[in-house]
Amino acid sequence: GHYIIIGQGSTVPSCVGELLSAISRGEADTKPIVVVFPDEAERKKVQLPEEIEVLVGDPTSEETLKRARVETASHVILALEDDSKAVFTTLMVKRLSKAKVLVEALREESVDLLKQAGADRVILSRSFAGRLLASSVFEPEAVDVVDDVTTSLGRYDISVILREDLWGKSYLEALRELRKSGYSLIGYYLNGPVLNPGLDEPIPHGAKLIVIKPSAS
Amino acid sequence: GHYIIIGQGSTVPSCVGELLSAISRGEADTKPIVVVFPDEAERKKVQLPEEIEVLVGDPTSEETLKRARVETASHVILALEDDSKAVFTTLMVKRLSKAKVLVEALREESVDLLKQAGADRVILSRSFAGRLLASSVFEPEAVDVVDDVTTSLGRYDISVILREDLWGKSYLEALRELRKSGYSLIGYYLNGPVLNPGLDEPIPHGAKLIVIKPSAS
Ligand SMILES: [Ca+2]
Ligand SMILES: [Ca+2]
Repeated sequence: GHYIIIGQGSTVPSCVGELLSAISRGEADTKPIVVVFPDEAERKKVQLPEEIEVLVGDPTSEETLKRARVETASHVILALEDDSKAVFTTLMVKRLSKAKVLVEALREESVDLLKQAGADRVILSRSFAGRLLASSVFEPEAVDVVDDVTTSLGRYDISVILREDLWGKSYLEALRELRKSGYSLIGYYLNGPVLNPGLDEPIPHGAKLIVIKPSAS
Repeated sequence: GHYIIIGQGSTVPSCVGELLSAISRGEADTKPIVVVFPDEAERKKVQLPEEIEVLVGDPTSEETLKRARVETASHVILALEDDSKAVFTTLMVKRLSKAKVLVEALREESVDLLKQAGADRVILSRSFAGRLLASSVFEPEAVDVVDDVTTSLGRYDISVILREDLWGKSYLEALRELRKSGYSLIGYYLNGPVLNPGLDEPIPHGAKLIVIKPSAS
């Protein structure tokens, strides 16, 4: 399998950078990355590392997807700056392959359609920006925290780890134990995030732990 | 003072919605909101609540800013989908007013220029999307957490609160105390976020507390 990223604009290099950094940390599987730009102009706007395979082609055309070997891809990421093209391409990828499809959408109204088309994840970049800009007005400190934990910049990252040895222990015990290795426990994940468990409640079997850790960079 | 939001696309209604909701919760100061669209076409794409004053005009023109009464605004938010216009408008707002300027930028290269122009906060919406899309590949659970805590959707919100009674108490005491009112302590803020303090370390005087709380919605 390989990763395919189709799109344009600054989402593309950010995504490639974060994937490469996760691969180098051993957190994401080592696989080739193929980037598809819609045209030469968009390709020229973006600087990518040498090892990335770059194609140019209409993202809504089956021929382009086949050139990117979509049938064997594990993940296809779409950042097309056009939600109707994103719906179309999602449907086509899902027809040609078993890849997970992760999509950047611009409008909230598109989320349901994209999910219906088979998208496994939809990120609403501009709604997110709107909310963060508003929060900057009334709670700038919270925006600083979000800025830091959601990017590889700054001092902290949010992460999800598997620690089977802590299953059944109380939340407080797990918190103390993790702090020794520099992790701050903020909750656990079992069919969804649980961020306010009781301190004496045991960590359920099967749960992953949600932690804040010192930044990788 | 009042809030001015200048721009287009889904950033605008998200920002307005989040501001109105913060005002209704008493977290943001109650002030009028003025939205400026660059043209009638962009205005028609966006649905806003009745109480919002809407203007149409070139965001890079002084005349438009004066119609929005920029001199007396407390905050000006820019979501222009064009970083060079954002730099230009930031400079003009800073010349005409003492308002804080909060900017959505599309390209990482623009951040330094925007700060140089006087922007108080820059949100890189598309880089954020790129990173979140990459994280969806290798740690989807962490993306679920970020999705939830950064939006009014879901079950949790991140927030920053002032609790002078907890200054000088140990981090663990503060954590126990806050849990009684449904808050999960994840760190404190003093000239920046501190998310991994020792459990026996006292909460410094002057610090605000960073918590996760049940969602307002
Ligand atoms: Ca970070
Ligand atoms: Ca939430």
